[in-house]
Amino acid sequence: MTQQNRMCGIFTPNVVPLDTHGEINEPETRRYVDWLIDRGVHGLYPNGSTGEFTRFTAEERRRIIEIIADQTAGRVPILAGAAEANTRETIHACEHYHALGVRAVAIVSPFYYKLTPAGVYAYFKEIADNSPVDVTLYNIPMFASPIDVPTVQRLAEECERVVAIKDSSGDLPHMMRMIAAVRPLRPGFSFLTGWDAALVPMLLIGCDGGTNATSGVVPEITRKLYDLALERKLDEAVDLQYRLLKLFDAMLYSAEFPEGFRAALSLRGIDAGKGRQPKTAVQQMELAQLTNQLQCLLAAEGFTDEPVGGCPAGDGISPAQLDRIVKQVVGELRKRGVS
Amino acid sequence: MTQQNRMCGIFTPNVVPLDTHGEINEPETRRYVDWLIDRGVHGLYPNGSTGEFTRFTAEERRRIIEIIADQTAGRVPILAGAAEANTRETIHACEHYHALGVRAVAIVSPFYYKLTPAGVYAYFKEIADNSPVDVTLYNIPMFASPIDVPTVQRLAEECERVVAIKDSSGDLPHMMRMIAAVRPLRPGFSFLTGWDAALVPMLLIGCDGGTNATSGVVPEITRKLYDLALERKLDEAVDLQYRLLKLFDAMLYSAEFPEGFRAALSLRGIDAGKGRQPKTAVQQMELAQLTNQLQCLLAAEGFTDEPVGGCPAGDGISPAQLDRIVKQVVGELRKRGVS
Amino acid sequence: MTQQNRMCGIFTPNVVPLDTHGEINEPETRRYVDWLIDRGVHGLYPNGSTGEFTRFTAEERRRIIEIIADQTAGRVPILAGAAEANTRETIHACEHYHALGVRAVAIVSPFYYKLTPAGVYAYFKEIADNSPVDVTLYNIPMFASPIDVPTVQRLAEECERVVAIKDSSGDLPHMMRMIAAVRPLRPGFSFLTGWDAALVPMLLIGCDGGTNATSGVVPEITRKLYDLALERKLDEAVDLQYRLLKLFDAMLYSAEFPEGFRAALSLRGIDAGKGRQPKTAVQQMELAQLTNQLQCLLAAEGFTDEPVGGCPAGDGISPAQLDRIVKQVVGELRKRGVS
Amino acid sequence: MTQQNRMCGIFTPNVVPLDTHGEINEPETRRYVDWLIDRGVHGLYPNGSTGEFTRFTAEERRRIIEIIADQTAGRVPILAGAAEANTRETIHACEHYHALGVRAVAIVSPFYYKLTPAGVYAYFKEIADNSPVDVTLYNIPMFASPIDVPTVQRLAEECERVVAIKDSSGDLPHMMRMIAAVRPLRPGFSFLTGWDAALVPMLLIGCDGGTNATSGVVPEITRKLYDLALERKLDEAVDLQYRLLKLFDAMLYSAEFPEGFRAALSLRGIDAGKGRQPKTAVQQMELAQLTNQLQCLLAAEGFTDEPVGGCPAGDGISPAQLDRIVKQVVGELRKRGVS
Repeated sequence: MTQQNRMCGIFTPNVVPLDTHGEINEPETRRYVDWLIDRGVHGLYPNGSTGEFTRFTAEERRRIIEIIADQTAGRVPILAGAAEANTRETIHACEHYHALGVRAVAIVSPFYYKLTPAGVYAYFKEIADNSPVDVTLYNIPMFASPIDVPTVQRLAEECERVVAIKDSSGDLPHMMRMIAAVRPLRPGFSFLTGWDAALVPMLLIGCDGGTNATSGVVPEITRKLYDLALERKLDEAVDLQYRLLKLFDAMLYSAEFPEGFRAALSLRGIDAGKGRQPKTAVQQMELAQLTNQLQCLLAAEGFTDEPVGGCPAGDGISPAQLDRIVKQVVGELRKRGVS
Repeated sequence: MTQQNRMCGIFTPNVVPLDTHGEINEPETRRYVDWLIDRGVHGLYPNGSTGEFTRFTAEERRRIIEIIADQTAGRVPILAGAAEANTRETIHACEHYHALGVRAVAIVSPFYYKLTPAGVYAYFKEIADNSPVDVTLYNIPMFASPIDVPTVQRLAEECERVVAIKDSSGDLPHMMRMIAAVRPLRPGFSFLTGWDAALVPMLLIGCDGGTNATSGVVPEITRKLYDLALERKLDEAVDLQYRLLKLFDAMLYSAEFPEGFRAALSLRGIDAGKGRQPKTAVQQMELAQLTNQLQCLLAAEGFTDEPVGGCPAGDGISPAQLDRIVKQVVGELRKRGVS
Repeated sequence: MTQQNRMCGIFTPNVVPLDTHGEINEPETRRYVDWLIDRGVHGLYPNGSTGEFTRFTAEERRRIIEIIADQTAGRVPILAGAAEANTRETIHACEHYHALGVRAVAIVSPFYYKLTPAGVYAYFKEIADNSPVDVTLYNIPMFASPIDVPTVQRLAEECERVVAIKDSSGDLPHMMRMIAAVRPLRPGFSFLTGWDAALVPMLLIGCDGGTNATSGVVPEITRKLYDLALERKLDEAVDLQYRLLKLFDAMLYSAEFPEGFRAALSLRGIDAGKGRQPKTAVQQMELAQLTNQLQCLLAAEGFTDEPVGGCPAGDGISPAQLDRIVKQVVGELRKRGVS
Repeated sequence: MTQQNRMCGIFTPNVVPLDTHGEINEPETRRYVDWLIDRGVHGLYPNGSTGEFTRFTAEERRRIIEIIADQTAGRVPILAGAAEANTRETIHACEHYHALGVRAVAIVSPFYYKLTPAGVYAYFKEIADNSPVDVTLYNIPMFASPIDVPTVQRLAEECERVVAIKDSSGDLPHMMRMIAAVRPLRPGFSFLTGWDAALVPMLLIGCDGGTNATSGVVPEITRKLYDLALERKLDEAVDLQYRLLKLFDAMLYSAEFPEGFRAALSLRGIDAGKGRQPKTAVQQMELAQLTNQLQCLLAAEGFTDEPVGGCPAGDGISPAQLDRIVKQVVGELRKRGVS
């Protein structure tokens, strides 16, 4: 593969809309696919971490890819999350997704057990040697066994099928080390970042694109960031990166992942439904407050109206909000038996 | 539940024997169950971390419990690992295992995503409220979201179905904090340690037993440790704990978990087969060396003969072994392109 | 050195009483030394972590040892913290403390920079080769470069001057691994634990004693624990360990270390003064609340009267306390600009 | 302070040249100061982590600043590391360095003990309220208590004396969060990065400069990077950043910090001497090998000749080097008693 056909651009790791019974909401999923493509994302990345692949059964994971491949109908390439319980199951998934016409699969490094670099290598080698479709390595060290630079290099050297790495570490020098180690040998190898907070800098040092959760909620911004970085409109790109960071932090750190993204998506008119991970009453209150805050942030970008009570000027918290927080703290203290 | 019917004793988290195709070896699994019960383990704990539950499909996990429940035939209680992709699937597994007559299920805390204490609580609460069978919490912070002391206490207070915790942190004061928080309210609640290296001290400070991987390989020792601790034969117990520690460390730290346990089990005459996680050539050599070392350790305990080349006196490495190590290092350096 | 003259027992890592100007309060320090010896501690350990050695100047550290050596006057052995900026300065301190008649020095592993095992070895080797007084290694991996088992073994083998290790990791199997590696070669080598929360189990698996911050506040309990463990009065020892754990956790986790110990010491009639690390207004309020809670815990052990407002039955929080907490939370929220 | 007089540019955290007795080599230190200024660094930063401030005595730390201030003679601003054992000692150092005419002091967050954000705040607040000279916060979470974003924001709001932060976390989004939180309120507040590996991206998202260890060895490159980033010559800047990364990684990760920098500096003609941290024989061999490798890297940049044996083409290791490595491994194995 030459440089010109590297996988590049913004691949959206889509949330899966759920209905009121917690089942895959197929019509809304199809509508969401169109909505994303209409807003300019370069590809779709179902069964990623944002797609909560671990919370679906093996059958559901297949169905998700089937729906999305069918609805996409070749308009954009699909990067299909294909990790299953073991290499044999994963290879079967690769075969199935290949038959559906996906551009490549993405395989997260083994998780639960923390493997050594040798184990990580052996795992990907076996899959790459048996997959009929191109493979993207997926490094997300906060959740799974890390894929270190020598392992990426060795897999890139030995396995033609391995064509890309998606790295969600957010560690910029780490990305540079991978690019320095692999690009001379494999000019067609693609480097995608999963860390929206550093998307512009990552693109500037040579990344080919990103698989960014924000692009599922504000595809207009994430796509624009990509374009600005490519056009080397640095000041505009950095300014927009700061705005995206604010949204990203609010969606990522204020609720169990990816509930903040699900909440924001609903504000944009996609009925994402409730996630499958149960919530306490306090968590539900917090999510309601977060939704309010997200609505203000999205309104500031012109994507929604402000919430009924209005938004605070600057970053302040309104007296009414303070009152709610205090009541909630007191309630929580009571709940923990302190009164 | 009163103190007298707390779950107690040694529950073996069994490895699953695999055949040459990597499939569940049912006859050997049945033979292994008998072998363990004959050697005195108090219960069985299939689909634990040692049982590599994440490397089997949902269907295989069910079949493993079915085989073991059928073979056990009520001789000892079964603690069935029942974690599935989400709470609904997990509750279905609880129902199925309940119908098979297991004593309780064990549910590992959510993994991959790292949940907050509130999320961990909500997860177990929903399962406990819907399970027809007693539930054991499973805390293994090196692999999954930690279950902190207030969460254990709250679940113990609110959920009668939650009857035990298996803790594999190995943190002794943490175990004491849990016991101090829960035992006054729930005298029948059981505390099991999954950290073989501290089994005796854990039993001395009040644990009811353990789910210990070593008991799958040297059930005679692990069971003996339990008896000595209960009989307060302190010096004998501590001496034996030191010997078990040596075996435990060798099996745990010298290969990808649980390959060391699988290798040792084969030395004891149970054909455990090869694990599903692929291995590099170097890893296979290392595993062969480890097997040799394990054979020496098991021979020292009278469980096997010494290997053909004999065992070193003390902990030394023989010149032949040194030679092998050096060759291996050189080979590995070559492989990495340094010659 | 043979087994019989191993350093053993409880060495108190004493807090340094400060006067209202933040200077070393020499008269109170001398009174505290007598108070501790009268209550049965086996030795003193000035300039430890509890003694905040990093917050004193090099001159003050020397003066602290001089005062304590003079006041002790040979009644109990002294383990003198002697770590200075580099090996040369540390060796000078060893020489000075040797002239003062201390039993041994304790040298914390290099901190700030995180050294490799080779660096840690080289550091201690140089000191041991040049110290005129016995050396205790001090392993506290939460604050300083870890000293791993091979390094302890190698230093024990090569350096006669190295006679002990103080380990504050609290990791019981780690202690067992060190004992297994060193005791056969050096029967006179001493193992001391700095983790009060596991003192009884540590003594049961072969530790010779401890350097325990609680012994500076409730020497009666820590000493009693040691005696019970030696007499193998297991049930009494474990029961007392649970009570000590409660005190230890309260003093350790509710304020910046070692402010909780300083506060508790003042409740016992030693005027410890205020620590040198500045505190916010909120931290001062929290410390006042902690003092109240500690007074209840100490009163329950018969060491103090209850505070004026009485103590809650069980572990509850009184309505008045709840009210204070809520006010404080609100105040803190205001301070952070949310109103 | 307005935007135009923010501290900006490259401040060199200089190594301190030592003589054969391990004493400060004053003449060489003076020569080094001139060498750095001649090569274009914007300022000097003595007593930083690269300057091994913890390995010098308090008196030596003062002397280092005195020598450097005297030699600099106002040609470039000095940022003087001023952290001492406690706030009082630190404030005295601030006063002394102020009298010497330094531009500002840099105070590392409290280390050894890990403080809470409240403790970190209180520490800096007390210093800032009493220092006669501007204060730079120094965040290096791998070695010291982290300074979180709200703490930086609060100190920037409340303390006019606090004029900058030096952040060595290397976390780019973290830097953006600090800038977003502080710059609107304090346009004159300066953000400096200590992580050379991300210098260009940091400058592009708004950092004012860096305190970079590489600038002490290859000031020409680090300064050039700064200029290219300011001139928005993106492609040249990124290309040079990749080359600097290679040097940085080699100096940082192949020996105990900062020995790699000391070795490289000697290759550039500054007699840095041996560091004070002792080394094993194996470490000395490794350092000799690293020096060889560094000479090749510096030769590739035109700063030195190639070593006598020549340099490998590309990144390979020569057969002679492989031979040395193998001999060393075998020797080390022997040393550990395996033969």
